[in-house]
Order: sequence, then C-alpha cells, then structure tokens
Amino acid sequence: MASPIASAALKSRIKRPSMLKKLCSPEDLLHYFPNGSYIGWSGFTGVGYPKKMPVFLADHVETNNLQGRLRYSLFVGASSGAETENRWAGLDMIERRSPHQVGKAISKGINEGRITFFDKHLSMFPVDLVYGFYTKDRPSNKLDVVVVEATEIKEDGSIVPGASVGATPELVQLADKIIIEVNTSIPNFSGLHDITMTDLPPNRKPYLIMGVEDRIGTTSIPIDPEKVVGVLESDYPDQTSENTPADEASQRIAGHLIEFLEHEVRFGRLPPNLLPLQSGIGNIANAVIGGLEKSNFKNLKVWTEVIQDTFLDLFDSGRLDFATATSVRFSPTGFDRFYRNWETYKDKLLLRSQQVSNSPEIIRRLGVIGMNTPVEVDIYAHANSTCVMGSRMLNGLGGSADFLRSSKYSIMHTPSTRPSKTDPHGVSCIVPMCTHVDQTEHDLDVIVTENGLADVRGLSPRERARVIIDKCAHDVYKPILKAYFEKAESECLRKGMGHEPHMLFNTFDMHKALQEEGSMAKIKSW
Amino acid sequence: MASPIASAALKSRIKRPSMLKKLCSPEDLLHYFPNGSYIGWSGFTGVGYPKKMPVFLADHVETNNLQGRLRYSLFVGASSGAETENRWAGLDMIERRSPHQVGKAISKGINEGRITFFDKHLSMFPVDLVYGFYTKDRPSNKLDVVVVEATEIKEDGSIVPGASVGATPELVQLADKIIIEVNTSIPNFSGLHDITMTDLPPNRKPYLIMGVEDRIGTTSIPIDPEKVVGVLESDYPDQTSENTPADEASQRIAGHLIEFLEHEVRFGRLPPNLLPLQSGIGNIANAVIGGLEKSNFKNLKVWTEVIQDTFLDLFDSGRLDFATATSVRFSPTGFDRFYRNWETYKDKLLLRSQQVSNSPEIIRRLGVIGMNTPVEVDIYAHANSTCVMGSRMLNGLGGSADFLRSSKYSIMHTPSTRPSKTDPHGVSCIVPMCTHVDQTEHDLDVIVTENGLADVRGLSPRERARVIIDKCAHDVYKPILKAYFEKAESECLRKGMGHEPHMLFNTFDMHKALQEEGSMAKIKSW
Repeated sequence: MASPIASAALKSRIKRPSMLKKLCSPEDLLHYFPNGSYIGWSGFTGVGYPKKMPVFLADHVETNNLQGRLRYSLFVGASSGAETENRWAGLDMIERRSPHQVGKAISKGINEGRITFFDKHLSMFPVDLVYGFYTKDRPSNKLDVVVVEATEIKEDGSIVPGASVGATPELVQLADKIIIEVNTSIPNFSGLHDITMTDLPPNRKPYLIMGVEDRIGTTSIPIDPEKVVGVLESDYPDQTSENTPADEASQRIAGHLIEFLEHEVRFGRLPPNLLPLQSGIGNIANAVIGGLEKSNFKNLKVWTEVIQDTFLDLFDSGRLDFATATSVRFSPTGFDRFYRNWETYKDKLLLRSQQVSNSPEIIRRLGVIGMNTPVEVDIYAHANSTCVMGSRMLNGLGGSADFLRSSKYSIMHTPSTRPSKTDPHGVSCIVPMCTHVDQTEHDLDVIVTENGLADVRGLSPRERARVIIDKCAHDVYKPILKAYFEKAESECLRKGMGHEPHMLFNTFDMHKALQEEGSMAKIKSW
Repeated sequence: MASPIASAALKSRIKRPSMLKKLCSPEDLLHYFPNGSYIGWSGFTGVGYPKKMPVFLADHVETNNLQGRLRYSLFVGASSGAETENRWAGLDMIERRSPHQVGKAISKGINEGRITFFDKHLSMFPVDLVYGFYTKDRPSNKLDVVVVEATEIKEDGSIVPGASVGATPELVQLADKIIIEVNTSIPNFSGLHDITMTDLPPNRKPYLIMGVEDRIGTTSIPIDPEKVVGVLESDYPDQTSENTPADEASQRIAGHLIEFLEHEVRFGRLPPNLLPLQSGIGNIANAVIGGLEKSNFKNLKVWTEVIQDTFLDLFDSGRLDFATATSVRFSPTGFDRFYRNWETYKDKLLLRSQQVSNSPEIIRRLGVIGMNTPVEVDIYAHANSTCVMGSRMLNGLGGSADFLRSSKYSIMHTPSTRPSKTDPHGVSCIVPMCTHVDQTEHDLDVIVTENGLADVRGLSPRERARVIIDKCAHDVYKPILKAYFEKAESECLRKGMGHEPHMLFNTFDMHKALQEEGSMAKIKSW
C-alpha cells in the first residue's frame, strides 16, 4: 500500500523524522488487531481519544459483517468518544472493558452480559495495570497495541497529548506496540501538560505537589520509538455535546452549598479563598460552579478530574486563579471559546495523569473540597455511585471515591427525588439502605439536596439519620423514612444491636414498591 | 493538698524542672473534669494509655455513686485499656466516643443507645479533629483536657510516649489543658518514635518516607508547657492479655497466602523479599506472621498499624529486618521479652502517629501488602468490618480501610464459617450481600479462607462471584450461594440489569435463617 503524503500541517506537528516515516493509513495497521487482542486507547471523559483507527476498525467490522468475530479487551483511562467505544459495543467488538464507560450500547452490553466490565478507582487503575494485575494471565504480560492521540510528536519521540492525559503514560508503558494519531484539526497543546510516569515499589517517590499549579513532570509523554508501528493523521476534533443548563433544583443545591462554605470560612475552618475545589460532572456540578461565579469568593483554585465549560465562566469572572485536572471536556462551543482565547487560559490550566489528578496523597494534602452526585444516599450516609437497584451498572465508579475518600470536605449533592416512569417523584434519592455501596459512612461529611444540607461530621449513625431525613429528604418521603428509622431504632435498641438500626429484611421495601408499583412512595407500611 | 514527693525514678524521667513542680495527685486534678467535658487520652490498641487519672475518676464515680452524673465525650486514637474505657462505660461515664473501642461494657453501651459512637478511618480521625470538625459546636473549639502517658519529659518540655503514638500529637495540639502521666514502671522508650505534627492545608507537606525505616520527625512530642496543669506518676504497665495460639483453620489460611505470595514473586510482580507487610489483629494475622517465620522469605519489612508478639518471633527467626507501626501491643510475656532484649529490637522498630502509619499516601507509595479479617465478605468482594447483621457495632472500622483501599495487595482473610449458638457452621462468612459495607468491591484483590484463595484482580462482578464461591465458601454453603448467584444472574440478565446480579428482596435470607432458625444453612430456597 502507498504511504500517505504528509500534509504541511502534519509535518509541523511531527518533529522527529523517523516518526514521519511511519506515517501510514489505518488499513496498513489492521493486522495488529486480531480477534482477542488487548487494546489500550488514550482518552478520558470523551476527549483526547484516538479516532481514525477505532472508526476504521468499526467500519471494517460493519462492512464485512464481522460482528462478534473481532472482539477486544479495551482499556482506556475513562470513557472515550461515542463514535468509537459505543459504536464498538454496538458492533459487538468489546469483550472486556474497564474501568469506566459512557454510552447506551456499551452499558446495554454490560448489563445484558455480553461485555465483561469492572470499574476501579480511576487513580488506581493505571497503577494496577502497570503492576501487571490485568494482564497476569497473558503470556506477554503486555497490552498488544495501544492507540494514542497526540497534538505533537517531539524531536525525542515523546508525544504531546490533546485534551486529556488520563492513563496514557501507563498504557504506553505497558504497550507492546504503539500507534500514534496526530490530530491536526485541533491546536498543539504543548505546554499544557505535566507528565509523570509510574515507578514500581519499592522505588516510588512522593508527588512533590504542594499547590494546584505545581509542576513535577515533563510537558510530553516519553515513547519508546521502537514500539511505534504506525503514525496516522487524525482530522476531526473530539466529539462532545453541549451542556444542559442548570435547573432550579440544582441552583438551590448550589445555594445551600455556597452558604455552607461561607459558614466554614466564618468559623475559621476554611481560608477566605477556600481550598482547591473538585467538582464532578453533570447538572448540579455545573450549577455549583455557576453559583461560585456569582459568590463573593475570590482567588479560587481547582484540583479536579475534569474541567468543563462552567470553569471558563469562572475564569472570566475573575474569581478563579488556576485549575488542574486530567482532562478538559468542553462542549463544542466551549472548545471553540477555549481555542480562540488560548493565550488567556493556557497559563491557568494544567493537565496531569489521572493517577496524579485523582491521587489520594495530593487530595488529602491539599485539603480538597470534593463534590459528587450519587445514584442514591442512605440515611446513614453511605452512597451508591454505580449500580441502580444494586445491579444495573451506569458508568462506573470514576474518581468519586478517590476524591470523597480523601477530601477535607466530602460532599454528596443530589436531587431529593428523581422521576420514575409514572411518578415525577417516584424515586427517592434518600433511602434506608443503599442497594450498592461505593462510598461508606466513614467517608462522607455533607449531604445536600434542594431541600437542605445535612452536615454529618462527627455524628453517630442515629444522629446522622435524623439530620439527613430532616434536611435532605423530599416531603413525600420524609414520613416514610422517619417511620423506617424509628421502627428500626426501637427494634434494634431493644435487641442490643442499635448502633446503626436496620430492618434488614425490609430495608429495600421502597425499592420493591418502585419495581412493583412504579413509585417508592407507594410503600404501604414498614 | 500536699504535693507528692518525686521518686528518684520519676526525677530521672523528668528533665524539665518546671514540670517536676507540677507533680500532683489525681484528686488535685478532679476539678478539671466537670460533667460534659471533652476529653482526649493517649493510647492505641490498649497500650500507651493514661492510667492514674482515668482509674481515679472511675473510683470517684463508683465511691460516690455518681453513675450517669459525670459523663464525658472521649477521644482516643483507638482503643484504651479495659480498666479505663471499659470500666468508664460500665459506670456510665461515656456520653460520646470515637473512633474505635474495645470492651464488652462499651460495645453494650453503644448498641443499647447509651453511648454515642462513630467510627472513622484511623488515619483521618486525628486530622478531622485538628480541622475542628468534632468540636465545631463547642464555644472553644478545643478539647477541654487531654491526658497523655509519657515515659520521659525532656528538657524542652516535649514528651516521649510509651508503647503507642496514636493520635497523641493531634490531641495535644487541640488540647486546652494537658495532664501528663509519667510511667516509671516501664522503660524509657526514648528513640523509638518518629513524631510529626499536623499542619493544616494549604500548608501541608508530603511525608518524605520512601522506606519503612525512614525518619522524618522528632523523637518526642512537643508540648506547650503552659497548657500542662499537672504531672502524675504512673506505676503499672499496660494491661494487655496473652494471645491465643493459631488454630488449624488459621494455619491453612496462612498456607494459602504464603503460596500466593510465592506465586507473585515467581511471576515478577513482587520482589523476592516482598513489599512491606501490614497485618491486622487476631488469630489469622498471627498465623500469617507465624507462617512467614517458617517460609523461605528473607529481609522482610513491616509497615503496619500494630506490632504484636509474633513479630518478635519473626525478628528472632532472622527473616524480618524492620517493622514500623503506631503501637507495639505485646502480651505481658511479649513485653517482658521486648524489655529484656531492648538492645536487640530497638533499632529495628519505629513508632509513628496513626496519621502516618495509616497514611494512604505512604501505603500506596510503598506498595504495602495489606491483610485484614472482616465480619463477612460478599460474593462480589465487598466486606463488612464493623456491624454484625448490619446494625450491631463490634469495635469500629479501625485502619482496615486505610490499608485495604491503598495497598498494592488488598487481602481479606476469614474463616469460611463461624459458629452460631446451635450450629458449629451456622454463620457463613461468605454471603450474597454484605449487611454493611466498609470495604467496597473496588478495593479488594484477594479473599482467602481455609478452603482456598480467590484472586479477583481484574475480574468483573460475575467472574468474582464464581471464583469466590468456588474457592472460599464452606462446602455447606457452596450450593446455597451458587443457587443464589445463578438465580440472580438469570433474572437480572433477562431484565438487562445483570452487571452485578442480586435478588434485592431476598438477598439477606441467609441472615434471616440465622436469626429465625439459628443457622444460615437452614435457608429453604431462594
């Protein structure tokens, strides 16, 4: 096959001549992807992922009716673009996936048993990968081929990632072969990253980061040039979607939270410019950042996993000094704004590997204020972040436990209810016992819904239950939860087992009412 | 009241004259303990705790029939001696307690609702204390009085602790008044500690520890001399008990574990001298350390929470090079052996604060091999470390999650069954769903019982369930658990929610059979 001719744009991005010689087309690389391969991709939260090779493989399967005959074990730092991993799932190309995913076809495959999936703390996944834990039953102990997106290949062969770092440093460390997709449709991100590789114990070192802007690594990811089997030109940007505007409930949650933070400053438990903020993904997270924009806080800093559009507003408001994460996941208009104002933003942003952005070591040291949205929270302050009704996987644990476990303030924000098919308040997000536990009662400090904020620091389980039901539960569910708690308390105390009272054999009756009658509110009695 | 005359032994331990002048008797200090006081004690796992003042207060309450009229909020790093905290509980002197406790009277008080208790990760408790989280509703934001045991008061007023460091650095940091008990009945422990205090964010620094023997602090705990309201002489040693010898099941568990570690060395995932070991408390932990003594491993190192008698054997076998923890909790004969061979052991041991011994930062960096015993483990590898039947508190979380969340190898070892009142195998330690979750499926790598070892690294929940039931469950429960899993799997996959299959409304039926018929094996059907 004839090698493609390098465009001028591509030449300007590839500084190492030997790499330019490896320029090829996806079809030249097809033979590196036999059925059953272990594959790694760059990417995190749907940005910085490889595009040409995955889409080519999907086309190849579709065109040749190879569904179910080319199946792969796929390792990516977190989620990838829908046109890659979700399309792969739809074409039955994913045998095994970890540690996170987004997309209807992929979660359907997982929950119907066709895709083997496990979720893991995003900070630990890359380390366990390098430990060889996920390739321990393979002869080579390696990933067969790792496909990474770059915005530049430097003279030393190292690559400058795009909008995410994720697990790329560890994926290339464990790769047998590497394919680089140089994306010329987005700017060169050079200088925006701080890259550290993973040493193994007993030779690991501290992360010498004492402030969000501290740099401890290099600006590009070192690559063993002999592992590189091909270089592709990638010609379209990350396929993200627009954000939904914050609704009223989210804004009320944000209001409660900002009031709480002001209270903590007033009592000297937080400095006036707070401590580094971590904010999850979604409606409420956006409302909180939006709320900060209208607050009186200044000189804010962000230590988080993903930077989203609202952070641009916070920068523009003059309230945010610096933000660091493992990915910038903007909407299309957000990316446009980011690229147009590159000079304004570039010195206020730093992207690190997910092992560093989500590092308990650093999160604890910096005293991060961690905020996340769960599936459900129980009256004793355990939270479910992953499995609906204890069984149905949504997206995976993500970094929720990395942050909530080690933050100075561990905050769960959730609407008090969600709609079921037949009842706008059919699902209470406050339940007697979580059907799946990802965050334990030992981790959470604050639960907040649109109704109010429960500060559970230093409280016993029975004290927690009272304040969570009182402050957070929806009016419809307040008497139901109160009745559960009081009956459980009275029974358990009488039996001398009342530390954390439960009626174990009825604890999921609200979930049963939801399943059988369409709403948790339809529970008859405890 | 006349001040007591300092013994020669005491004079040799108090190097600062102004402290010698504060020598007094417990009755002189009674007025510092009004009802409702917030009190801190040194101590961890029943060693290094203050003795004279707590016992005097207990006598005072007993003699004057003040039960229920002098009640305190009691903060200790972990558990204290039975003659202090458990006796206090029996005399209704504890209103509030955290983050850990041991003793029949105290757990009875907690489970009957008379003592307000919460458990917290032992690494976080001291930090949250210094953050002011536990005193936030008090006018002073302080602990009223902190009583600490010392084996020496240095010229600069700092104190050398005894057999534990625990949370003492943070307790004295937060103390309004301090009472020092200088224990002259045990040796001066000077040189055995590495003390670090707690800075608050944004001014916290990395713990620059790269090996178990690394020192980063001072040998004594700085004390503000103006806070010291009294010095007492303490005249009896820590009241510990003898260890129970390892039984056959524990030895089989140890055998499986050592075989696993050898396997990991053979495949290059562990160096030949392993990585630092953490071992919990109890029969199985003792058997594992005993097993290592008879193994071929050399130059072992220990990074753990508590050092027990079996570590002395491991030292004497020549296989253990160095051990560090936050306490040495030996039996009376163990302490005797330790003191008699002080010169042999003193340079191989280091005691740190519990914030450091249990630090996720260091545990992750060193790649610790963490091992603990749970109440129960479920088929998907969640574990319950605290609450029997979801409600009855045993001792508290301890450091289990500090270690299991961040270790390179997170291992749960448990007998496959425990006896109920009527059936020697009435309680299966492998259950469909844990009734309380302290360690999540995202944390554990290995589950081991006397029957075998389940290596669940990189497995999906359904894969985990198969291997845990097959390798770990007792023969009596294997078919019962298998039936649960297969029915749940078939139902959930059909409904498209089969990632982690559960029959939510029957998941605790084995516990129900235990409660209603005396044995989990009496479950009729799923």
